[in-house]
Amino acid sequence: MPEINPLEQRCISVVRGLAMDAPQAANSGHQGTAMALAPLAHVLWTRVMAYDPEAPDWPDRDRFVLSAGHASILQYSMLHLMGYPLTMDDLKAFRQWGSATPGHPEAGHTAGIEVTTGPLGQGFGNAVGMALAERNLRGRLGDGFIDHHTWVIASDGDLMEGISHEAASLAGAQGLGRLTVVYDDNHITIDGATEIALRDDAPARFAAYGWEVIELGEAGDDLDAIEAALKASKVDEARPTLMVLRTRVGSPSPTWEDNPKAHGNPFDEATIAETKRVMGLPPEETFFVPDDVANFYRNAAAARAATHAEWTERTASADTEARRAFEAAWSARPAGDIVAGLPTFGPDDSPATRVASQQVIDALAPISPSLFVGSADLSGNTGTKLAGAEFQSAATPSGMAMHYGVREHAMAAASVGMALHGGIWPVGGTFLVFSDYARPSVRLAALSKARVVFVWSHDSVGVGEDGPTHQPVEQVMALRTIPGLCVFRPADGNETAAAWATAAKIDGPVAMILSRQGTPTLTGTADLAVDGVANGAYVLVDPDDAQVVLAGTGTEVAVAVEAAETLAAEGITARVVSMPSWERFEAAGAEYRASVLPKGLPVVSVEAGVTLGWHRWADVPLGIDRFGASAPGATVLDRLGINPAAVADAARALLDDR
Amino acid sequence: MPEINPLEQRCISVVRGLAMDAPQAANSGHQGTAMALAPLAHVLWTRVMAYDPEAPDWPDRDRFVLSAGHASILQYSMLHLMGYPLTMDDLKAFRQWGSATPGHPEAGHTAGIEVTTGPLGQGFGNAVGMALAERNLRGRLGDGFIDHHTWVIASDGDLMEGISHEAASLAGAQGLGRLTVVYDDNHITIDGATEIALRDDAPARFAAYGWEVIELGEAGDDLDAIEAALKASKVDEARPTLMVLRTRVGSPSPTWEDNPKAHGNPFDEATIAETKRVMGLPPEETFFVPDDVANFYRNAAAARAATHAEWTERTASADTEARRAFEAAWSARPAGDIVAGLPTFGPDDSPATRVASQQVIDALAPISPSLFVGSADLSGNTGTKLAGAEFQSAATPSGMAMHYGVREHAMAAASVGMALHGGIWPVGGTFLVFSDYARPSVRLAALSKARVVFVWSHDSVGVGEDGPTHQPVEQVMALRTIPGLCVFRPADGNETAAAWATAAKIDGPVAMILSRQGTPTLTGTADLAVDGVANGAYVLVDPDDAQVVLAGTGTEVAVAVEAAETLAAEGITARVVSMPSWERFEAAGAEYRASVLPKGLPVVSVEAGVTLGWHRWADVPLGIDRFGASAPGATVLDRLGINPAAVADAARALLDDR
Repeated sequence: MPEINPLEQRCISVVRGLAMDAPQAANSGHQGTAMALAPLAHVLWTRVMAYDPEAPDWPDRDRFVLSAGHASILQYSMLHLMGYPLTMDDLKAFRQWGSATPGHPEAGHTAGIEVTTGPLGQGFGNAVGMALAERNLRGRLGDGFIDHHTWVIASDGDLMEGISHEAASLAGAQGLGRLTVVYDDNHITIDGATEIALRDDAPARFAAYGWEVIELGEAGDDLDAIEAALKASKVDEARPTLMVLRTRVGSPSPTWEDNPKAHGNPFDEATIAETKRVMGLPPEETFFVPDDVANFYRNAAAARAATHAEWTERTASADTEARRAFEAAWSARPAGDIVAGLPTFGPDDSPATRVASQQVIDALAPISPSLFVGSADLSGNTGTKLAGAEFQSAATPSGMAMHYGVREHAMAAASVGMALHGGIWPVGGTFLVFSDYARPSVRLAALSKARVVFVWSHDSVGVGEDGPTHQPVEQVMALRTIPGLCVFRPADGNETAAAWATAAKIDGPVAMILSRQGTPTLTGTADLAVDGVANGAYVLVDPDDAQVVLAGTGTEVAVAVEAAETLAAEGITARVVSMPSWERFEAAGAEYRASVLPKGLPVVSVEAGVTLGWHRWADVPLGIDRFGASAPGATVLDRLGINPAAVADAARALLDDR
Repeated sequence: MPEINPLEQRCISVVRGLAMDAPQAANSGHQGTAMALAPLAHVLWTRVMAYDPEAPDWPDRDRFVLSAGHASILQYSMLHLMGYPLTMDDLKAFRQWGSATPGHPEAGHTAGIEVTTGPLGQGFGNAVGMALAERNLRGRLGDGFIDHHTWVIASDGDLMEGISHEAASLAGAQGLGRLTVVYDDNHITIDGATEIALRDDAPARFAAYGWEVIELGEAGDDLDAIEAALKASKVDEARPTLMVLRTRVGSPSPTWEDNPKAHGNPFDEATIAETKRVMGLPPEETFFVPDDVANFYRNAAAARAATHAEWTERTASADTEARRAFEAAWSARPAGDIVAGLPTFGPDDSPATRVASQQVIDALAPISPSLFVGSADLSGNTGTKLAGAEFQSAATPSGMAMHYGVREHAMAAASVGMALHGGIWPVGGTFLVFSDYARPSVRLAALSKARVVFVWSHDSVGVGEDGPTHQPVEQVMALRTIPGLCVFRPADGNETAAAWATAAKIDGPVAMILSRQGTPTLTGTADLAVDGVANGAYVLVDPDDAQVVLAGTGTEVAVAVEAAETLAAEGITARVVSMPSWERFEAAGAEYRASVLPKGLPVVSVEAGVTLGWHRWADVPLGIDRFGASAPGATVLDRLGINPAAVADAARALLDDR
């Protein structure tokens, strides 16, 4: 081992001390990996990455993703030491109510945290999206504005998760050379030695994806070797890099190093004192940061931040048009009057809402420079083509259309990464039933308020012949359970357009639930949908003295309208309520809700999915509380009771009961 | 190309004819892959696999898994031709209501279909479980009873899905030599050439997992070459095999071969006639099976079935003990009085339900020879250790404990495969929040009624410091939306034991939702839980003249009990209802439900998760309609309103309102 500068050695020891002290104070946390990775973090923050602690949101910063999010105390310690707005008190409040230092890093919660990690593999997938976003923006705007690198720390667990395959394979196919993943190869998992369950040849695996692989081996505290490897990973711009770093969990604790228990259990006080003694730190001191260490880090941060000053100067001198283009791109929102540009649908139109949605995307594209549209190998089927756009690739980095391949999970995670990177408004399409494959990333999109539009078509048993494996029945409701995910299930083309208009304004992820089959344009939606959808639900058919409400979503609103007509012929007056978004309706307030669903008026609902959840709104919910069946879609819907006669029957029975 | 026997060539042409005719009749389906793979299927069914069409459930049959389930017409055609109980009328009713030939293969629906496939990657994961089950049973029972091979056809899409990584990596680590995956390398996906999104070196990738790789290349109709490669794949018993077979979608259609459109669109009549003409079939005939072809297949099937006769003879001559052991293993249920052997918990016990569940597993193990217990690297945390058991491996094939690694999705899919293989009662544990990672496999477990116990612990914000990324709030409800999944969230140790007792009898998957934190043993559960849990809900505290019901699940039942005590002190009588399983409660019937939740009695519910869904049972549902927070679990629960005071307040307010 070469000599290490004693001050830098001391810096690393201080980081390791913090990584023990905070979990010990919280009686909870993961110090083992944080300690092992302290030299790597030290090198990244002091010698490699471009960032500015005083401007955590500077667009052209390098992105750092701790995919092994359980080692959060490492990232928090570095953010604090480098001068981000994270205080020593924040470190002391690690994992406590209201603190800026939660158990796992949360984007939007703590300055300097780029993405929310912890569920393994997610950060890896996000980082691929960030590298895509960087390349795309660089391609669109020139490298005066966007020109940076994405760095990831990933663990054995990250690489075992299936999403790592999808994301790595995607990154390889795309040749994302601005991405470096450091694989923390520590041979330890919670249940014991990694080898009890994992025998992959990881370098060969990543080489098979088209990655560059740097096998650094055990670098210990050899900062120069780590620095050289990290910088070497930047040279080949045609391939992402996996850098394999052998570490020892809990290092340099004499008792706990290489022990699986060092992963998720705080050390005891004696072990901490012993380890501090080994490192030459005062064993009795906690949260110890001597002035020389503090100064070293602040000086290093100032040096790294010089890139920000250069960027500011450079971009200020760019011509006005270029700066405007950057700002328009960076906002990632459509410009101007969204509604005015959207297609409208008349009584003779009966497109599937997936087809209507494609028309909306076509209309949005010219006013949305950051609209980035792709699918998991279902572009035509889901209405997620981007007319006239090039497909994203190394040869066409400015391409706004994307082939994700059959990789729903990576598509979602990459979309989250792009949205949180900034400058991209990602839209990703697949069949609704396959939203299940992406659910972990959808959840984190919601938790981190990432502006992603998930287009999920083929939204019910109306899918038809493909059968129950491809017919969602539980997915719409299961998605509604995710806090912060705004779910739209529009009833026709006009509601679809209105849902997109609302989605453009929302600060978080949106689910666009679309039909495979055509559905009539409903009377009234041309005028009412824009406000109605924004409010989540609205009255579509409003006879005087309504006796009953028929409520529905999506293609079943047409069923409710037809049932209302049947009932009207019998002298029963029925109000029809379209409820495209429960989340928006909840947010619209009690008064508005009561205006749509007046207290005392009985409600029958109809939705071609499970009824669980509908009792919130309906006295009698009609739905499909079983899996579907393989047959033409209209047959399946009818046989499973999704038809106007069943709705009318339920309304009559409900009125008779009262 | 070597000469091919003209009759066998004609056989393959007939299969290709059926593969065109059935989608054409249905105006829906995927003939392209089915046509391309006809030679492979022909070889598998006539020369390679051991099976008996007259005994589709013969335990020692080879297992065939069409992971590329969209090519279902290929499998249906072969099942029909080989003499399985699938008629020509069934083929003609392809994808029609009530038919035995749904769009994608469904286990339990069609004889000869082993697992339900279509959602890509699932069959691959199931097959790994089947190979595990085979090895385990062979190890436990000797190869007189179980001694077969698992065959898989997988597509580009299967290999792009993340689950293929998890499952392949697991199979490699386990050295599952009795598994052959044929990779249908056709260079075509729905959106175009595979290369637009996929550039993996698949052979190198699988070699990195420790697989044997056979690159057969383009074999066309060279049946001998295909046979030789398939048989070669069986030789190395230490490694699973990936056999790469280059095919041409839609072959031998002169117009559609190699065209992405041949994937999922029926040909038109002219194209079908042209293709039949090329193949020497009468172009005007549909569903054409000449006698010589029919006879060839029936004779081949009879020859393959000889293995069944040998098995019957061999096992009949085994000693009584061995036969009893086989039968006990094959039932995959506990023997004898389950309830009598379960642990009971008294007033001084307050284990976390995950801890109680571990004790139940310990008690079940001695009477459950097929109980196979593992976790996704969280064995201690989730209570899924199997005391005294060896871990499953090539060296210890009879081991009933399993390290799945950090592979929730593969764990679930493999569990489904094991359950459907027979002879295994698989239990797999992870944190509840990570059930999201496994959801596609959980859904198919439910659709195919696979007897899997999913142990999901750390079931609420009670998780505490790990924070919102690790705190489920929506998962319990999202799981309840899946038809056919029985979800248990037991309130204490006694309910946990009762849930397992019920689970042992259920013909389908079970979710066991367990707490991280300790919770008191509730008064009454020792006597009431066995029947009460079986009924899904029951009255736990039953004062005379109850004014209000407090209903809850899991650890929140204790909160309801405490609230009832608070209210009792004020003279308000509250019934407490524990509702561990909504599915069982629904199934218990309206009369029973009304006995537990009488009409007219107001209900406050409390569950530490989203309230969506609770209006089915409660007037005022208390829950957590947001993500959690990082802090000690008791703090988070209390701050988010899960406490007795909030329940009592809600009850008072509800009574005041009336």
